[in-house]
Amino acid sequence: MPSATQLLFLDGSVKFSHPLVLEYAYYYVSWDTLVHFCFNESLNEVYFNNPMWPGESHSLKVEKILFRDKSKYQEVLVFQSSAYGKVLVLDGIVQLTEKDECVYQEMITHLPLCSIESPQNVISGYFIGTLPSYNAGVWYPASLHREIARKQEIFPELAIGFEDPRVHLHVGDAIEFLKQAPEGKYDAIIVDSSDPVGPAQELVERPFFETIARALRSGGVLCNMAESMWLHTHLIQDMLTICRDIFKGSVRYAWASVPTYPSGVIGFLLCATEGPPVDFVHPINLLRSWMVHLTTEGKLNLQLRGYLSIHRAAFALPSFVRREVEALRG
Amino acid sequence: MPSATQLLFLDGSVKFSHPLVLEYAYYYVSWDTLVHFCFNESLNEVYFNNPMWPGESHSLKVEKILFRDKSKYQEVLVFQSSAYGKVLVLDGIVQLTEKDECVYQEMITHLPLCSIESPQNVISGYFIGTLPSYNAGVWYPASLHREIARKQEIFPELAIGFEDPRVHLHVGDAIEFLKQAPEGKYDAIIVDSSDPVGPAQELVERPFFETIARALRSGGVLCNMAESMWLHTHLIQDMLTICRDIFKGSVRYAWASVPTYPSGVIGFLLCATEGPPVDFVHPINLLRSWMVHLTTEGKLNLQLRGYLSIHRAAFALPSFVRREVEALRG
Repeated sequence: MPSATQLLFLDGSVKFSHPLVLEYAYYYVSWDTLVHFCFNESLNEVYFNNPMWPGESHSLKVEKILFRDKSKYQEVLVFQSSAYGKVLVLDGIVQLTEKDECVYQEMITHLPLCSIESPQNVISGYFIGTLPSYNAGVWYPASLHREIARKQEIFPELAIGFEDPRVHLHVGDAIEFLKQAPEGKYDAIIVDSSDPVGPAQELVERPFFETIARALRSGGVLCNMAESMWLHTHLIQDMLTICRDIFKGSVRYAWASVPTYPSGVIGFLLCATEGPPVDFVHPINLLRSWMVHLTTEGKLNLQLRGYLSIHRAAFALPSFVRREVEALRG
Repeated sequence: MPSATQLLFLDGSVKFSHPLVLEYAYYYVSWDTLVHFCFNESLNEVYFNNPMWPGESHSLKVEKILFRDKSKYQEVLVFQSSAYGKVLVLDGIVQLTEKDECVYQEMITHLPLCSIESPQNVISGYFIGTLPSYNAGVWYPASLHREIARKQEIFPELAIGFEDPRVHLHVGDAIEFLKQAPEGKYDAIIVDSSDPVGPAQELVERPFFETIARALRSGGVLCNMAESMWLHTHLIQDMLTICRDIFKGSVRYAWASVPTYPSGVIGFLLCATEGPPVDFVHPINLLRSWMVHLTTEGKLNLQLRGYLSIHRAAFALPSFVRREVEALRG
């Protein structure tokens, strides 16, 4: 652990007087994460800077550090922000905030699951915030990393799915898990991955999508996090091209507004295997109401905050995206 | 003018060694704007910080200062950013960038003008980027501030409308202009205002909307910039309530993704006066193609980059917005 005087901040200066920074330094995680803290001396404020905005700098004002830890897999940091509630950071990159996670979680879950009849066998990698909103039979959320389970205490609404008896938690390598899965086992696979850097790089490459297609039943569906239409059109083009080749059913791109993700949007890649046709734009399952009751306890309500009424709109792309992404034309 | 050593940056430190900052300091505009520059010493980079993101800090990396001036009305700054092209700043607040202005300009123009038959008398306050895409008869764009005309050299694509013989430029106070207008003169009024702080505050208040309603013909339409559904639901509620009271026709709220506006979105308030019913969600005029030719010279093409295919989707709101804004329910 470096001494306090070694702390380096975004502006290149060395600061160590703010109590939040001292607290964070004491529970030292790593140099990589520390460098994202920016200290505004004149206002006595601390900002956490998200490095995933190229050519931009996007920072959230920090009120309090709530949790920090490091395992052999990754660094975890949770802080209370002034504008977006609690913020979860993995390896220095903002993963979700209390204020805007609703749209992301609900869209990545319901875009695929509303598109098929009675999903029963579903596997969801990473987070499982909105799982209980479905009357599916058995859930197999795979968690890549052990730390995710700890979110239960800090983000009880996100961890609500863990209490559902239909949910089975698998901790480990999701790619290995899928490789071992029986062929055609799953109705739907949801890949809520982190950005494609480091270990997550292979989550946007051909072998991964082949593994998924093999694990899906005929007419099964994949929903994969697919970056920003403003910033990553080359990556979107690559993913669409690979998936049109591998999945023989419908392949579509959708998006939603999530302010704390780069450029304020996040995309979703939707793919169906050959079999009963899937029309992602016109879902066959519609949620019964925006207030869905938990089946296990009956005393908690899961309010869907973003999904309703925006399913179809998610497929409406500004025309510049179609011009930049050839695979979206025609 | 302060000396270079007096420059104060976001982190509270005093810096003056970067050539961009020196250049900007030489063409001194004001202390208010200078304070938005943040100097990253370790990376030798300069960022411009947009103060309109409360509880957040959003900055664009500056490559070169292109233009700066100050009149009795406002400060103007244009810089080349690394990620969003040229950026226009008025009084220290980012107004538009080359990369994402397309969606804003096209939506604020076409949401209202596609909703009525053959718009002829249209007045548009502030910017006129997409004017020539219509075969309307006479255009009366009012410009609040003299500096806007200078954008012709720096943003030729935005200033393209000035060359159209149907366009008449009025420089002055738009509110006074509208008060003097004959009652019922206009088919459509587009209020491309800045944020409701300072002189623009009255642009979201009852007397202003009453002035507009009086100047519109029966069944005429207003489109007003209406902030972020993520951040300003109280303001949206107030505007909707006031306008439902004043305008007796349809009143709707729409939005679009614009990364460099606070929270990455911008809203539009659409109002129709009593008369022939207006259905904003289902426009009666559809643009003939996304490539629209200028009628004056025939040699310039105006490519609509954002509008097509997202008109209807603009009215699909995440359900949390309906819960926070009572006026959007039912």
